[in-house]
Amino acid sequence: MRIPILKLNNYLLISIQTEMDDKTAIQFQEDLLNKIHRTGASGVVIDLTSIDIIDSFIAKVLGEVVAMSDLMGAKVVLTGIQPAVAMTLIDLGIHMQDVPTALDLEQGLMKLHQELGE
Amino acid sequence: MRIPILKLNNYLLISIQTEMDDKTAIQFQEDLLNKIHRTGASGVVIDLTSIDIIDSFIAKVLGEVVAMSDLMGAKVVLTGIQPAVAMTLIDLGIHMQDVPTALDLEQGLMKLHQELGE
Repeated sequence: MRIPILKLNNYLLISIQTEMDDKTAIQFQEDLLNKIHRTGASGVVIDLTSIDIIDSFIAKVLGEVVAMSDLMGAKVVLTGIQPAVAMTLIDLGIHMQDVPTALDLEQGLMKLHQELGE
Repeated sequence: MRIPILKLNNYLLISIQTEMDDKTAIQFQEDLLNKIHRTGASGVVIDLTSIDIIDSFIAKVLGEVVAMSDLMGAKVVLTGIQPAVAMTLIDLGIHMQDVPTALDLEQGLMKLHQELGE
């Protein structure tokens, strides 16, 4: 299984709606970085609204993919983080302090517009 | 596997990026109709850019999902239809005459704006 990555103007949109296994998560990381490279996207919204809970491996991959995207010049906004997901991230020391968050996809896109001034 | 359906304002966005098996296609049909019902979306963009080829079952499901969405009051725009996909659809008599098409997601959204006058 691969998680689809949608390109909308200068941004990439991802909605994770099913629990990821480890392989899918790694594949997603690779696909997203490749797509940032290919499209020159300046921003990424990853929507987690449908995810109730994540395990430590997925949390780590998520933290990494945000840092890697940032290195490649694409700002990531996370949206729809649920309580248990927030708890797992903080418990694991994945603070994502500089990562803007928002309620949903619309607001995530607005946040990117604000952050990037586009 | 389930195909994620993204909600952006009044529209639903779907990008099909891997070949669907029959079960995934049926699940997608059900998920999309449920999401139209739940969100009251007025438009749907289904992007097929990454799909080189479809078999007759998937083509039929696609034709049906467009007709069903229409019945539920949501206008569907198809984007990124490749030559072999177009050939399969027409060969099977799935003409989708009233279905607007566009090159990519951005243009699909613009088409919805035009069609729905929103």
